[in-house]
Amino acid sequence: MSVLVVGSVALDSVETPFGSVKEALGGSAVYISVAASYFTAPVRLVGVVGADFSPEHVQFLEHRKIDVAGLQTVASGKTFRWAGRYHYDLNVRDTLSTDLNVFETFDPILPDGFDKSRYVCLGNIHPSLQQKVLDQVTKPRLVVGDTMNFWIEQALDDLRHLLPRLDVLIVNDSEARLLTKEPNLIKASRQVLKMGPRIVIVKKGEHGAMLITEDTIFSAPAYPLEDIHDPTGAGDAFAGGFVGWLAKTDDLSDKNLKRAVVYGSTLASFCVEQFSVEGLKDLNASTIRDRYRSFMELSQFDEK
Amino acid sequence: MSVLVVGSVALDSVETPFGSVKEALGGSAVYISVAASYFTAPVRLVGVVGADFSPEHVQFLEHRKIDVAGLQTVASGKTFRWAGRYHYDLNVRDTLSTDLNVFETFDPILPDGFDKSRYVCLGNIHPSLQQKVLDQVTKPRLVVGDTMNFWIEQALDDLRHLLPRLDVLIVNDSEARLLTKEPNLIKASRQVLKMGPRIVIVKKGEHGAMLITEDTIFSAPAYPLEDIHDPTGAGDAFAGGFVGWLAKTDDLSDKNLKRAVVYGSTLASFCVEQFSVEGLKDLNASTIRDRYRSFMELSQFDEK
Repeated sequence: MSVLVVGSVALDSVETPFGSVKEALGGSAVYISVAASYFTAPVRLVGVVGADFSPEHVQFLEHRKIDVAGLQTVASGKTFRWAGRYHYDLNVRDTLSTDLNVFETFDPILPDGFDKSRYVCLGNIHPSLQQKVLDQVTKPRLVVGDTMNFWIEQALDDLRHLLPRLDVLIVNDSEARLLTKEPNLIKASRQVLKMGPRIVIVKKGEHGAMLITEDTIFSAPAYPLEDIHDPTGAGDAFAGGFVGWLAKTDDLSDKNLKRAVVYGSTLASFCVEQFSVEGLKDLNASTIRDRYRSFMELSQFDEK
Repeated sequence: MSVLVVGSVALDSVETPFGSVKEALGGSAVYISVAASYFTAPVRLVGVVGADFSPEHVQFLEHRKIDVAGLQTVASGKTFRWAGRYHYDLNVRDTLSTDLNVFETFDPILPDGFDKSRYVCLGNIHPSLQQKVLDQVTKPRLVVGDTMNFWIEQALDDLRHLLPRLDVLIVNDSEARLLTKEPNLIKASRQVLKMGPRIVIVKKGEHGAMLITEDTIFSAPAYPLEDIHDPTGAGDAFAGGFVGWLAKTDDLSDKNLKRAVVYGSTLASFCVEQFSVEGLKDLNASTIRDRYRSFMELSQFDEK
């Protein structure tokens, strides 16, 4: 099944205690698309870049069989840039700079054919832009949306209008608490369900991820990595793996949603092992399946 | 199989946003013993109380078939008292007062017969006292020890001497990091293994618990409780359920260690549903088994 991905395309400069990269390929639409591309096709990317965006990056996306017809290039502008520094405790990061550049006036217009995409994954952009995308698509089977603390604080009304149009909201634990003012994550998740989406996924970083519907709660561990080189993009790789698996199988049963959460966690675990999208470059069905099985090993137990 | 439990016996005054109790039964030895008593017998408690310790508390322990021959009463003293207040976010608590009273001079002397206990669970007391207990026991099959940030900071030498004598160290995530100065929990756990114990369990509160040996990593979720009334004792109830299950089955295989972690999580989940030991008072094999199965539901997934 087809997947439509909308979000940022960025050049990230990242420092961690284990190394650094300058102006490396990043952005939510990139991470989501690349992760999803290991499961299904076509994956259709909608985003915007400036004239400085290297053709090599476009070639990489095309090599991953991602349809880049929706990647707008603003000849007079520069690509969105983000710079950040992670502490030795990788849960803590400082944003050093954010230059929106062409992303500031991003207007997500879908090329012909993109409107019929069956699965939609809205990366973290302004909720009014996420709505504008949904206005253009025709009866998708599943809409997955991501957001962040910035929009919860700065664009809550727009976000509240968006939520009933999502099937799945993906947030992290602090965002779930911020959105609901409720410290208990289970209660917070149930309150988010009342705001519209029928499925909430709460990402908890090193503690894994949780899927909550009205009837089901599922808790997946994080992969126990000793060497995390760059946490950037982990949440987007999760979203891409999640939606990619669902699009591949076109099965929205509780059982298959759980598998999708673990495939999301699998792609996130590969992502953080290297800088930028390096960890997502050379995967295949077998490396992905092996890690999925490691997740089973990690969390399965029986009854005596 | 027999279980020897050593630790504090306390009267706790606890405030949470959901209620409060004054001078209610508490203490690590109590929570551990009561939790373990649902799995195996005899459970032998070693601790100290003052003349003010209500006979009803002793009767409750005896009703749970706990052998209280090792519960010393200091006629001239008062029982250890702790008072604390939990915030609306139950992960945050303030200690309001700590009156060690008779616990300050606690000397854990084992009564006749206790020295032959096959399973030993050392609750959170000074590591030199934990060692003193081990000096008195004869070839136990498994020694489980708990500690806390206070001993890591104040009695690190004693703790380092203790660690090679433990089979299992139970700590929480911040204690694992404090002990090793390593923010990555997997790396931290591996470093703890090098300090002596062959099994490390890292408790992560609402995020569950992790078991790490040289060959195995197992990640168990926390039970998704919406109404946590009092987190006091959760870690001790975990330890009691863990060691209780192992003593019942006398099986130290990786498979059974995983089950023990889930039984520990099960008892912890019951513990926090009510104040003091109320949540551990009226359990039985069937309520425990049902919740164990809920943990399976919560974390199991398959391969398509």
